Amino acid sequence: MFKQVTIVGFGLLGSSIAHAIKNNSLAQKVICADTNQLHCDKVLELGLAHEATTSVAAGVQGSDLVILCTPVGAMGDIAKEIADHLEEGAIVSDVGSVKKAVIRDMQPHLPSNIHFVPAHPIAGAETSGPDSGFADLFKDRWCILTPLEHTELRPIEKLTKFWEACGCNIEIMGAEHHDLVLGITSHLPHLIAYTIVGTATDLEDDIKSEVVKFSASGFRDFTRIAASDPVMWRDVFLNNKESVLEMLQRFTEDLTALQRAIRKQDGDYLYQSFEKTRNIRKEIVEAGQAEYATPAED
Amino acid sequence: MFKQVTIVGFGLLGSSIAHAIKNNSLAQKVICADTNQLHCDKVLELGLAHEATTSVAAGVQGSDLVILCTPVGAMGDIAKEIADHLEEGAIVSDVGSVKKAVIRDMQPHLPSNIHFVPAHPIAGAETSGPDSGFADLFKDRWCILTPLEHTELRPIEKLTKFWEACGCNIEIMGAEHHDLVLGITSHLPHLIAYTIVGTATDLEDDIKSEVVKFSASGFRDFTRIAASDPVMWRDVFLNNKESVLEMLQRFTEDLTALQRAIRKQDGDYLYQSFEKTRNIRKEIVEAGQAEYATPAED
Repeated sequence: MFKQVTIVGFGLLGSSIAHAIKNNSLAQKVICADTNQLHCDKVLELGLAHEATTSVAAGVQGSDLVILCTPVGAMGDIAKEIADHLEEGAIVSDVGSVKKAVIRDMQPHLPSNIHFVPAHPIAGAETSGPDSGFADLFKDRWCILTPLEHTELRPIEKLTKFWEACGCNIEIMGAEHHDLVLGITSHLPHLIAYTIVGTATDLEDDIKSEVVKFSASGFRDFTRIAASDPVMWRDVFLNNKESVLEMLQRFTEDLTALQRAIRKQDGDYLYQSFEKTRNIRKEIVEAGQAEYATPAED
Repeated sequence: MFKQVTIVGFGLLGSSIAHAIKNNSLAQKVICADTNQLHCDKVLELGLAHEATTSVAAGVQGSDLVILCTPVGAMGDIAKEIADHLEEGAIVSDVGSVKKAVIRDMQPHLPSNIHFVPAHPIAGAETSGPDSGFADLFKDRWCILTPLEHTELRPIEKLTKFWEACGCNIEIMGAEHHDLVLGITSHLPHLIAYTIVGTATDLEDDIKSEVVKFSASGFRDFTRIAASDPVMWRDVFLNNKESVLEMLQRFTEDLTALQRAIRKQDGDYLYQSFEKTRNIRKEIVEAGQAEYATPAED
């Protein structure tokens, strides 16, 4: 499908893409560009790339597809660094969890003779590093493409085929809309999870050990997403500030209303609030998005 | 193990206990006491009890073990109703998610010739009703007993054996400590989950459908626990008010600090907050409490 693909940043996403390319024969050659020499060594050892370099500028030369898999805060600098070394007609893409800021940071540096197609495969795990990747990470996941207004159709189609071959279903939308939707479905939930796990971490030591012991009663569900990569998530919140703060404001208002109902012993309000949330779960189950049938424990 | 067990309230917990008794031959006879006639009919149809009655007073007669499996808000009235009908020496227990309020509401009504041993099996699912039960619900789960100061050792041991036979590991602690620990591990997470799912439910319709579609990116984990029984959870919050409000206060302070860091673009604070929460996940995995290995998706 591609002559040569450069993957910039070999964390969970980068190494999973390398696995998917290998398993599905999507490129003749894969280049690893990662500023961490240990990552480069590991990638070659694992046979995930044909060549590895700590210089992103050198790494992108001759590639017809370049995918940035670094935290989104680093993508502007990388775009600047690779700009003069990109092959004419190459597709440049990324896997960032925010899209408006990535476009804002990368677009000004990129030459007009390449095709910039921002993308976000909605897939991840609580592991990280070059040896954490696996090809099935993308199986049956959504990959959202947020092409720019002037982006040509052919590179969009080509990247669509690439992600479909990796196992994804494709959705195309504007960057601003992406950031709003992911703000509520992903960024706010992660922020809340980080917060509640942090609150528990700060508890007195004797209670903390019991929090671990009895975590199956609800807390556990939050620890899983609060174990995600801290650099990646720092960058997400710094770069999707408006959507996250807007959703957080709504969340806080709703939480304050529930808090007041508890304080005032307003059982009716609590009941009605808890009743209405059942339907959305039903819709998720019907949409085939409720992954596991493991029961919640109360 | 027991001559006759009365289960008061045949929801998920009650019917699962009936299954566990049947599978492990823990009683010669099981009586269903449920004010809902449809539940009684269903229970007999499913063969989960030998007799069924809508009168709890009649249902407890002659039983050497009575387990209240209703929402905690109803337990005081039930204790009053059954008080004069309990067999001398019977063990009276419950499965309520709060313990201080259950003792406060039940204890004054119960005669001194019975043994009151409050209990809380930490197990549940997002289903409810008499046909939702299954014996394995309690397998490898914790069951916390919170006996009173004057409770004799023998009934505590007998109830311990009963829950162990159902598959539980037993922990004994004071009611106040139970409510504090469950406040952070269970009640606060449920309140937060209900809130965030409610916030999403109130969004404009066009975004709401996408929330369902892309729920795997984090939101999904919250919908599972926000699908729990609304009556049960209303009663939990009304009856563990102090612990929940205390934990909620800490949570809100921590969330506000993160919110300010996002607004001020304080990346260092965000990074440090997200970094420290990884360890607690590691401890949960090491304690064998991380049930499924399904990766979180970002």
